[in-house]
Amino acid sequence: MLRLRTAQSFRQNAASNLKIRLNSIRLASVAAQYYPNEPTKPELVTETIPGPKSQQLNEELGRKFDNRATYFVADYVNSLGNYISDADGNKLLDVYCQISSIALGYNNPALIKAAKSDEMTYALIDRPALACFPSTDYKEILDEGILAAAPPGMDRVWTSLSGSDANETAYKAAFMYQHAKLRGSMDFTGDELTSVMDNKAPGASQMSILSFEKGFHGRLFGSLSTTRSKAIHKLDIPAFPWPQAPFPKLKYPLEEFEEENHLEEKRCLEEFEAIIEKDHHTPPHGIAAIIVEPVQAEGGDNHATSFFFQGLRDITLKHDILMIVDEVQTGVGASGKLWAHEHWNLTTPPDMVTFSKKFQAAGFYYSNPDLQPKQAYRQFNTWCGDPSKAIIAKTIYKEIVKHDLVNKTAEVGDYLFQNLKQLAAKYPLNFRNLRGENFGTFIAWDCNDVGARNETLLKCRAKGVNIGGCGDIAIRLRPTLTFEKKHADILVQVLEDVAKEV
Amino acid sequence: MLRLRTAQSFRQNAASNLKIRLNSIRLASVAAQYYPNEPTKPELVTETIPGPKSQQLNEELGRKFDNRATYFVADYVNSLGNYISDADGNKLLDVYCQISSIALGYNNPALIKAAKSDEMTYALIDRPALACFPSTDYKEILDEGILAAAPPGMDRVWTSLSGSDANETAYKAAFMYQHAKLRGSMDFTGDELTSVMDNKAPGASQMSILSFEKGFHGRLFGSLSTTRSKAIHKLDIPAFPWPQAPFPKLKYPLEEFEEENHLEEKRCLEEFEAIIEKDHHTPPHGIAAIIVEPVQAEGGDNHATSFFFQGLRDITLKHDILMIVDEVQTGVGASGKLWAHEHWNLTTPPDMVTFSKKFQAAGFYYSNPDLQPKQAYRQFNTWCGDPSKAIIAKTIYKEIVKHDLVNKTAEVGDYLFQNLKQLAAKYPLNFRNLRGENFGTFIAWDCNDVGARNETLLKCRAKGVNIGGCGDIAIRLRPTLTFEKKHADILVQVLEDVAKEV
Repeated sequence: MLRLRTAQSFRQNAASNLKIRLNSIRLASVAAQYYPNEPTKPELVTETIPGPKSQQLNEELGRKFDNRATYFVADYVNSLGNYISDADGNKLLDVYCQISSIALGYNNPALIKAAKSDEMTYALIDRPALACFPSTDYKEILDEGILAAAPPGMDRVWTSLSGSDANETAYKAAFMYQHAKLRGSMDFTGDELTSVMDNKAPGASQMSILSFEKGFHGRLFGSLSTTRSKAIHKLDIPAFPWPQAPFPKLKYPLEEFEEENHLEEKRCLEEFEAIIEKDHHTPPHGIAAIIVEPVQAEGGDNHATSFFFQGLRDITLKHDILMIVDEVQTGVGASGKLWAHEHWNLTTPPDMVTFSKKFQAAGFYYSNPDLQPKQAYRQFNTWCGDPSKAIIAKTIYKEIVKHDLVNKTAEVGDYLFQNLKQLAAKYPLNFRNLRGENFGTFIAWDCNDVGARNETLLKCRAKGVNIGGCGDIAIRLRPTLTFEKKHADILVQVLEDVAKEV
Repeated sequence: MLRLRTAQSFRQNAASNLKIRLNSIRLASVAAQYYPNEPTKPELVTETIPGPKSQQLNEELGRKFDNRATYFVADYVNSLGNYISDADGNKLLDVYCQISSIALGYNNPALIKAAKSDEMTYALIDRPALACFPSTDYKEILDEGILAAAPPGMDRVWTSLSGSDANETAYKAAFMYQHAKLRGSMDFTGDELTSVMDNKAPGASQMSILSFEKGFHGRLFGSLSTTRSKAIHKLDIPAFPWPQAPFPKLKYPLEEFEEENHLEEKRCLEEFEAIIEKDHHTPPHGIAAIIVEPVQAEGGDNHATSFFFQGLRDITLKHDILMIVDEVQTGVGASGKLWAHEHWNLTTPPDMVTFSKKFQAAGFYYSNPDLQPKQAYRQFNTWCGDPSKAIIAKTIYKEIVKHDLVNKTAEVGDYLFQNLKQLAAKYPLNFRNLRGENFGTFIAWDCNDVGARNETLLKCRAKGVNIGGCGDIAIRLRPTLTFEKKHADILVQVLEDVAKEV
């Protein structure tokens, strides 16, 4: 038959075959395209991690810089894709990724190209005070990156430098918005103008930001006042007298505890509204905004359902309180949607959504133009963001779209979750409260106690998987968006090997 | 004679001539070496600045990003050395430099090389969580840059992301230090561990940071509580009930008011100590630290003498209060010393010195190892700085040393000051309270009123000089470290032309 084909049909078939092959490569492995030399499994060369070189370098660094939280000293030159290399030459499958930050994998070729571009060079060496002297291309950089990635219903952004900074600038926007509403068309009073210089009311606000038990929103003074994850984060630092509300404690597996969990979420919503109605809804002592994470990550990967979040949205709207969703850790694809709060299908979008980590660029999205204060120089600082990070974010977002990485992450997440479910059935004490189903690779579980959790983390590392904990007894997975089934298989195998030992 | 020379002596002479020529080029103009094509004077192509392209781009950007503080949209590709280009092609002599931030000039060749280096690429695309997974080269990057530049008596650094962030992490270090001292060898109490989760004492500190009237230390919640420059920066934002002390209001010319100024500084020191003794020295309500700028820049370029700063140091030592010097705007050479507080010749160095702007890299220096909290994860966050900015800082510092830019800035500053003094004699109402003598190019003066100040700024821009104000009626100079006599001559000429009109 082949010999009877016309040249044209042959060429068509070849092209079609090639297309199928390319598609199947694309479907099969974006990681293989990006990283043809990615290790196929962890490669261990020292008996312990950190090895001797890591330890020596870290000791030297420690004389100048507080590095007592160091896992190991990393060799980024020899890291690739989903594998991080350490100073000793060990190559570990990384499912922690700089605390949930590496979006595409180490030494991604598209990011190399962006880093070497002239656009990046100018952004780095002529760093602008963005709100005073924006560059001719800043709008385009935002349009093609950070703004193209904006959550549904949001078309504006205020850029900043970190998750804490993003949250605090969002808080400032909330306070200024609420006071502008109270003030109406009036000007600042003389009393406001003088009292504020002495840090006193009425010029200084007595309103508050409400956050949730176990929430984490950063470590600067305003954000730390809303952080409720661990005492060690907060001890000895002055804090604003702002309220906290309970966050649901769900029981797992969800299908078994549907009714109980629903009641728990109802209870939390009722307490939330009671707090608002009791102490915090009388000017000048009202709640300007609430801030909530789609998953309380640092606090232990605590999930809640759409019912709870829709309830928060309804109650905030009812009481004219703004709703800030903190997507610093959940944002940019890992949940199987670009923004985790898209899972909720809210009837009204949140007022602000903050981001950082996977984009490097940080800030908050919003749509209501009144969240931009009426006067200039109120939401303002020298940098107002960083174009070099906005270029990184743009590049990451374009790669995500090009390679359909959010859907791929949803798929591999489902695969991984089913495998972990089987492990949990086999080792129930090692994999308690497995959570994150249908939530991409944003998966976590509890260990039996803090000792078992820490032992598990260390043993995983010794077997070549870099993995992180959260809360008191949880393990959280935070792989890249190019984490695939082949990586999941290795992870699951290591987790099973460790489960046998712990 | 030439023909009688041996080849060797000819070569020696040629080499020697070349050396002399190179030295004289070096002495004459680092700017000419860096920027052979730097404009020789402002080049204006539109009738007004911002011109039509700037206005259009800015209007488009403004739909997505709060840019109402924009002077003009800048074209960084066509900016060079001390000249900033705008979107319309105007080239302005820049003595504002991204609010005191551009150290070497636009598109500096050494920075281009650093930006294009592999070191920079890895830093950008594999951005580490520095306290958990530092890179193998982070110590070296710090050693050769940020730490090599450390002020006298300081050998440690905590890196952060902005001036506000630098100050707030320094405050956190101060609070943790003071409470550790109070606590002695005891552990955290149960009461501390629970109360802090509710933002209450005793877990949350009731201590404070004292700052000075007209001081500026940033715009996040903790730093803003110490900022006392303008009401518009602070209105409607919650603030901690922290104290402020008076900052001397010196009269000029200094030589005329020596005794009066001395009394004013004595008065401020006495009031400062009275505040400490009255309300703020009884645990748990003490002052953890004071923060002070060598020159209150944002607040109006207010100077004080070494007598005042030595007095602050003595009083803080006497009362066990830490002294933080905020060199975010004054640091990195512009004052004619690398760190402006070196002008004071303090008998004991400050406890912490914060930096950002000209280095891009931000953070605080310190030497006392007890300023590193005993427990890990207290001074901590995801990024803990940014190696890409540390590489920029390293490159800038090496260039400063190589070209002796601090001493050169001291020289050109003296030249500029003498010229401005002559202008002030001619136009006394336009150049009131000229200040910054023997302080590099960190020079400022007052206009007659706010209207005259703003008119002067606009007219300077229209004549091709980008210049900034501060305080209510002041104009501040913040040129690069490659600003030379030839640039100073242009600046002085434009200032005189404008003075004739205002």
